[in-house]
Amino acid sequence: MAQGVFYEDIEVGAVIRFGHAEVSREEAIDFATKYDPQPFHLDDEAAARSHFGRLAISGWQTGSMSMGMLARYFEQVGYAGMGGAGIEQLRWLKPVYPGDTLTMEMQTLDKRRSKSRPDMGLLNQTFTVLNQHGEPVMTYSATGMVAVREP
Amino acid sequence: MAQGVFYEDIEVGAVIRFGHAEVSREEAIDFATKYDPQPFHLDDEAAARSHFGRLAISGWQTGSMSMGMLARYFEQVGYAGMGGAGIEQLRWLKPVYPGDTLTMEMQTLDKRRSKSRPDMGLLNQTFTVLNQHGEPVMTYSATGMVAVREP
Repeated sequence: MAQGVFYEDIEVGAVIRFGHAEVSREEAIDFATKYDPQPFHLDDEAAARSHFGRLAISGWQTGSMSMGMLARYFEQVGYAGMGGAGIEQLRWLKPVYPGDTLTMEMQTLDKRRSKSRPDMGLLNQTFTVLNQHGEPVMTYSATGMVAVREP
Repeated sequence: MAQGVFYEDIEVGAVIRFGHAEVSREEAIDFATKYDPQPFHLDDEAAARSHFGRLAISGWQTGSMSMGMLARYFEQVGYAGMGGAGIEQLRWLKPVYPGDTLTMEMQTLDKRRSKSRPDMGLLNQTFTVLNQHGEPVMTYSATGMVAVREP
């Protein structure tokens, strides 16, 4: 039997927890400088005057960090992923600040075999990024594609 | 009259084109190392064996680069933005490769005044990232918030 996590191994409803990512101030400013140069992501005084209250990281950095946690988890368990084509209902729920520590939860709401590709399964999944207080800071849904072990 | 682009200035249906971002190989590998360490984003040989055909950048980098183009455009025109809480229907349509040059299009499909906050307008917007061949590589929708000039 092929090692790793295939379509057959995905348990509908189960919540999988994984990942650990620390948000550093240096990385926050580096990311914002390149990809989201709004004052409240770059400058303490501007951030203090904004709805964030203090320097907060770009929502796109939170999303990118969630991808990093996912990719590392997939590698760790030998996940037979076949990619994803998009994201639904992404929500930034709370600011993420330098010094925060992020983890993730993934839940598969349903799964089905692809009609056109017998080697592929389709997963309806939700992803939640949580901070060190257990508070959800970002959620999104996606259709994930995963290989079938015995097509 | 306040300078810049306010709710009153948003023209429903108009397509706004802006931005110019070059994708460098160094930045692609730097981003993937931090945020999306999948082999086809890091290694030429692994990428050649993948559906991308050659080294492609992370979809989260494309999204982050779109945020960068938006933030710079907003600063340039003095856009009275009040943030955004999420993203809908994000689709990665084509791979983006080092050497590509990206631009953006933004269209406001409809707009309305907030009922609870008279100083705020809500915009239903679509965003398209295009490569140097004019091909859409990523699209998404979002509800944008923008200040009303004369509440």
